[in-house]
Amino acid sequence: MKLWERLLVAPGRRVHLAEWDPEDTLGQGKDAATEDALAQAIARLDELQYVMYADHRHALLVVLQGMDAAGKDGTIRHVMGGLNAQGCRVTAFKRPSAEEADHDFLWRIHRAVPAKGDIAIFNRSQYEDVLVARVRKLVPRDVWSARYEQINGFEALLAQNGVTVVKFFLHIDKAEQKRRFEERVKDPTKQWKLAPEDFEDRKYWDDYMAAYEDALGRCSTDAAPWFVIPANKKWFRNLAVSRILVHALERLDLKFPKPSFDVSRLTLV
Amino acid sequence: MKLWERLLVAPGRRVHLAEWDPEDTLGQGKDAATEDALAQAIARLDELQYVMYADHRHALLVVLQGMDAAGKDGTIRHVMGGLNAQGCRVTAFKRPSAEEADHDFLWRIHRAVPAKGDIAIFNRSQYEDVLVARVRKLVPRDVWSARYEQINGFEALLAQNGVTVVKFFLHIDKAEQKRRFEERVKDPTKQWKLAPEDFEDRKYWDDYMAAYEDALGRCSTDAAPWFVIPANKKWFRNLAVSRILVHALERLDLKFPKPSFDVSRLTLV
Repeated sequence: MKLWERLLVAPGRRVHLAEWDPEDTLGQGKDAATEDALAQAIARLDELQYVMYADHRHALLVVLQGMDAAGKDGTIRHVMGGLNAQGCRVTAFKRPSAEEADHDFLWRIHRAVPAKGDIAIFNRSQYEDVLVARVRKLVPRDVWSARYEQINGFEALLAQNGVTVVKFFLHIDKAEQKRRFEERVKDPTKQWKLAPEDFEDRKYWDDYMAAYEDALGRCSTDAAPWFVIPANKKWFRNLAVSRILVHALERLDLKFPKPSFDVSRLTLV
Repeated sequence: MKLWERLLVAPGRRVHLAEWDPEDTLGQGKDAATEDALAQAIARLDELQYVMYADHRHALLVVLQGMDAAGKDGTIRHVMGGLNAQGCRVTAFKRPSAEEADHDFLWRIHRAVPAKGDIAIFNRSQYEDVLVARVRKLVPRDVWSARYEQINGFEALLAQNGVTVVKFFLHIDKAEQKRRFEERVKDPTKQWKLAPEDFEDRKYWDDYMAAYEDALGRCSTDAAPWFVIPANKKWFRNLAVSRILVHALERLDLKFPKPSFDVSRLTLV
């Protein structure tokens, strides 16, 4: 199963989300072998994180985007839950603060990029500025339409400085979102997550899909590829994200550095 | 086993580290029941983190201090490894940057305290400024000796604003440190962690212990208690830290908030 190739948005290609089935599992079933594969991928990620931290030449930036209830929190919990909290930082980008709004849209993003050896996870990201900002008309068209190239320039800078950027669109359909919202409404341990605005956004579903299609199509680059993750099935979403991340890190030729001094000459008193 | 009471530095009490045995396990053996207890404590921590995040009135700040190789990284990995990376942030305080050094010593610390609902873990902390700064004479005596009260004032501020502060001194002896350094020297996946300065610090062992005794004795308060964790045995260290953290959070009466609007009136289109 070549998840990477199958789910990658090929750079330069236009995206039609109707062609990507949110129920897809690429022929994979939910069985013991799949559970094993997920556990293995998560364990491997943990190993790779440790070597990347020691190696100290690279960093990893994971961008998670998706409609409400698409599973951004769940992915962080289940896929990144196995990572060492030291050297892994999650930033959730919400409505900008007054100070953030007084800067260009990439200012707050830049502050949160990972240091060498580290992993940063963005729960929402710079892409909100070509998604909600466009759909809800928070800025004029000429402002948001200039942002695709601005984002590509920014992500190229990161890549040229050792940051591997991997971006996931968690793709659910409107019916699945409804099911998940209905679950939350019933569950007292989940009700607190509900906000009336979330329900509001459903009215703009098609506009959001159009905005995502442009973001995915115009900003999937070799330096910072987008993946469309069929996310109606949570188990497949977790498997796909974890295996793509493993592959992204395995390409880096990470290794433990040699000590900068002659270890054999150390004397312990 | 009342770990909390047994390992707590009672506020106002002078500390003599010679009276705290780094090999101690409080009568506990390393058996299946102990492994179970650790797994349970870690699972419980994860639950409590989730409720605290939802509840959004409290935060948790965990301070880890100890000599090199005392197990600060290992504790983060094994105890906090189960936590959700979203809402849990580790800050390792190293030698201050030029900008940090141009401010008071609590400036960089304050920026890293947890937001409501979050957990922050400090790998080293404000206490370095009464430990290495004192032992290695980085500042004059009148400067470091004023810091105990400054720290107490700062930690009281945090506590009064909903931050539970729990501080752990991971207590190993000099022979155990030597064993661990020797392991690192032999292991190519650990050699990179070695720095000649680490070995240098062994010469000041007794001075460090004296500095720790003052820090523990003068800065263990009801608002921000210190615990001395016997840490020669890693399994006991993990058990003790995780159970004390569970206890600290269970005292908070955390609960899921009611939604701020009438959930039954939501209509999904």
